[in-house]
Amino acid sequence: MNVGILGLGLIGGSIGVDLMRQINVHVFGIDKNPKHEKIALDRSLIHSTISLEECLETIHLLILAIPVNSIAEILPIILDSMPENLVVMDTGSTKMSICKTVMHHPKRGRFVATHPIAGTEYSGPEAAVKGLFYDKKTIVCEPEKSDRDALEMVLNLYHALGMIPLYLTPEDHDRQLAFVSHLSHVTSFALSKTVLEVEKDDHRIFSLAGSGFSSTVRLAKSNPHTWKAIFIDNQSFVLEALDAYILQLENFRELLSAKQSKSIEDYLLKSQEIQRIL
Amino acid sequence: MNVGILGLGLIGGSIGVDLMRQINVHVFGIDKNPKHEKIALDRSLIHSTISLEECLETIHLLILAIPVNSIAEILPIILDSMPENLVVMDTGSTKMSICKTVMHHPKRGRFVATHPIAGTEYSGPEAAVKGLFYDKKTIVCEPEKSDRDALEMVLNLYHALGMIPLYLTPEDHDRQLAFVSHLSHVTSFALSKTVLEVEKDDHRIFSLAGSGFSSTVRLAKSNPHTWKAIFIDNQSFVLEALDAYILQLENFRELLSAKQSKSIEDYLLKSQEIQRIL
Repeated sequence: MNVGILGLGLIGGSIGVDLMRQINVHVFGIDKNPKHEKIALDRSLIHSTISLEECLETIHLLILAIPVNSIAEILPIILDSMPENLVVMDTGSTKMSICKTVMHHPKRGRFVATHPIAGTEYSGPEAAVKGLFYDKKTIVCEPEKSDRDALEMVLNLYHALGMIPLYLTPEDHDRQLAFVSHLSHVTSFALSKTVLEVEKDDHRIFSLAGSGFSSTVRLAKSNPHTWKAIFIDNQSFVLEALDAYILQLENFRELLSAKQSKSIEDYLLKSQEIQRIL
Repeated sequence: MNVGILGLGLIGGSIGVDLMRQINVHVFGIDKNPKHEKIALDRSLIHSTISLEECLETIHLLILAIPVNSIAEILPIILDSMPENLVVMDTGSTKMSICKTVMHHPKRGRFVATHPIAGTEYSGPEAAVKGLFYDKKTIVCEPEKSDRDALEMVLNLYHALGMIPLYLTPEDHDRQLAFVSHLSHVTSFALSKTVLEVEKDDHRIFSLAGSGFSSTVRLAKSNPHTWKAIFIDNQSFVLEALDAYILQLENFRELLSAKQSKSIEDYLLKSQEIQRIL
């Protein structure tokens, strides 16, 4: 089987490096940044590079691993111009706008909308790692709108990566991710910016930072282009999550201002219930 | 040397287990919770238990590893009643109020104010681990107010644990920690509470949570008693840090509401500078 990966960053590159171990799979890589293509070849994330036009004539499956706004832009164009039997899947962190952009496309059945829940705070082909997806969940949206063979091909791919498929509507996906992923990124970006601001007047501020700080702020290292696109694409759910979060902070602020010892303890005890989940 | 540890939680227990490997050191443990004393004995975090009164007559060094409000309460009482030569140190996460409470005490010189910057989100003697402090920093405040022999004994202890001492005024310590530790805990507690609230209406909300969420929320598992005391004790600096953080979130909220793509990217790029530190 010939697979094309468009976008050789953390996700595309990590899919590539795992597929390279599959028997009888040839992995073509395409990235608008020639440096990324070179690194992907040097690191054996792909077998070879190719142009997108040529690729469409050669492959059986195309994986879109580019920012979500770019997926929504390019997906209808690819469906328009590609051969009838090609299967296209995406890996984007939002699903509503991507599914909507092709909902009436005559080749909608050739597309499978997915989101593998895996990643690190690093980006680019240098960040690609083997086994990133192993034993993690992947979301498949609107499986009923994909042709049976297309869905099967994509599920086989995820099976090969060691992923467990879950099915969700695009709306449920986008709302849930806003709370358990996108909001975490906002909290990290804002925490980073808060302490970097303090650093301007107090150069030693980071000298006492320990593992707790690192843990809460590490997502701020994530790719700004990728995350700008996700936040804007999922704007209304991210704002809903952010508003709920700010309310919780203001709640805590009020209790602390009044040194309401008992209520602060109740607040922290309630928060600690996260132990049940993690 | 005989060492007494008052408070056999994560910090006290982890100091104990490392000291147990030292030659010619006997480690006495004291905890108001008899279960904690039993676990500490069972896990070999201490050699034996003892009452605080007896302990003061037997040991050379007393380590206070209890919540910061309890340290501030008990420290003057211990200084009042203990033998002249005993050395007392604390491990509290705030330093201003503790130092202030004994600033005019006739035995101030026997006390060394410290804060080892190490920990995990777990608590109690079950959470104690070997090597927790190795290669980490420990803060010493007001070393000039401690007797030379007392300071030397405490520095030797931290050297034995593998820690690197740094010197800070209590005020600088408390302000810096508010930004790089206490604020991180507030962000985690509030994030946990936000998503737990959503869970009431959407039971599946956590099914998609990945490593990013875990990382940003793990501090919410921290001990509510310990952290209530820290927040209240360091109230003004924690509120300063929290206000700066809420401002950054509101800033981001405004940009996202207006879908100001370029400004959002600038915000994220600026946040990403944390790479320079971590």
